[in-house]
Amino acid sequence: MKKWVLLYSGGLDSTVALFDLLARKDEVACLSIIYGQRHRKELELAAHITKTLGVQHQVIDLGALRPIMTGNSQTDSSVEVPEGHYTEESMKLTVVPNRNMIFLSVAMAAALSKNFDGVVYAAHGGDHAIYPDCRPEFVRAIQEVAKICDWKQLEVFAPFLAKTKSEIVLRGMDLDVPFSKTWSCYKGGEKHCGKCGTCVERKEAFALAKVSDPTIYESAN
Amino acid sequence: MKKWVLLYSGGLDSTVALFDLLARKDEVACLSIIYGQRHRKELELAAHITKTLGVQHQVIDLGALRPIMTGNSQTDSSVEVPEGHYTEESMKLTVVPNRNMIFLSVAMAAALSKNFDGVVYAAHGGDHAIYPDCRPEFVRAIQEVAKICDWKQLEVFAPFLAKTKSEIVLRGMDLDVPFSKTWSCYKGGEKHCGKCGTCVERKEAFALAKVSDPTIYESAN
Repeated sequence: MKKWVLLYSGGLDSTVALFDLLARKDEVACLSIIYGQRHRKELELAAHITKTLGVQHQVIDLGALRPIMTGNSQTDSSVEVPEGHYTEESMKLTVVPNRNMIFLSVAMAAALSKNFDGVVYAAHGGDHAIYPDCRPEFVRAIQEVAKICDWKQLEVFAPFLAKTKSEIVLRGMDLDVPFSKTWSCYKGGEKHCGKCGTCVERKEAFALAKVSDPTIYESAN
Repeated sequence: MKKWVLLYSGGLDSTVALFDLLARKDEVACLSIIYGQRHRKELELAAHITKTLGVQHQVIDLGALRPIMTGNSQTDSSVEVPEGHYTEESMKLTVVPNRNMIFLSVAMAAALSKNFDGVVYAAHGGDHAIYPDCRPEFVRAIQEVAKICDWKQLEVFAPFLAKTKSEIVLRGMDLDVPFSKTWSCYKGGEKHCGKCGTCVERKEAFALAKVSDPTIYESAN
């Protein structure tokens, strides 16, 4: 049995990771980080799921980072959320520079404070092409830092690094993950918009996995 | 000419680093990070020095991290600031877990946003024994991350990694650094306390460098 701090967004991937860790009987403390996103919808769902599971959930507001993160659609309201399938160009607009290293370093601090074994990071194979900080070589470099950032060695576990999002959906099916309670959309509406890059990716993952998608979308296409 | 984000505390080491970079005609933007320390005295001095030099100075308040950083004297008011020469035990009490990785990752984000070449980190040789995240191997591991955290490669420059604090004092002398305007003391009094580990280390550095120490201490020994 290991003890992990899970970087938990309330999205599909990290929710499946949470259920996966609990199925192994590992101990999990979830950490959600707010950093000036447009909406907090996914955090409400994260709170709901962790409460249902009886898992510790800590939310840290790093909105103070906003002044150093400009020129991308997630934190800069002057940039529009791109619609349609992710292209390299539109996906780059959603990248907060070095966001995942910041998140990982905070999660590592939390793991050290709790005397836990390490951190779980739910980056997946489909992210690599566009997000530099989801690449396997980035994760490997972070794993090296984690070994020496303290006197105690930390592990960084990325269970989905070699998986596609549709494989994550399949794993979630096995684990009875309540997909309808997870949030992917970059916009903050009542329902998933169905049009932004991450909605398109979500739909595609269910379709490829041949799993019925319980998500209610504003737009069907 | 390179462009750097300097992690700038207002302390002696990072102030000498600032003067050193300016002497090379590099462009510098200073970044100070508040994270729930007992006092902000050093940040006031940081603001004064950067204003005098006409250098950009940004302050980011990561006080939101406080809940995950407990059990050490800098952020947890239930732990006393240790007095006397640093021992391994007393110095460990001042370690905020993974603090420097968090700071470096934020500075790297700032460098990416500004399209700068990298980050300067003024850790020095005397820190290694006690602070795991000041060790050369830690810096090397962070340098590897910096190469791949984005599509653009970042540099992490640690000019004092192989220097002692007294060598930094000597370099500061050459550069006419106004040492009296730098702050080291872990306590937040009007004057340096003269007793805490970092005051003792500061005094020792001037003594070893045979440089007159302009610091006014509450206590002479």
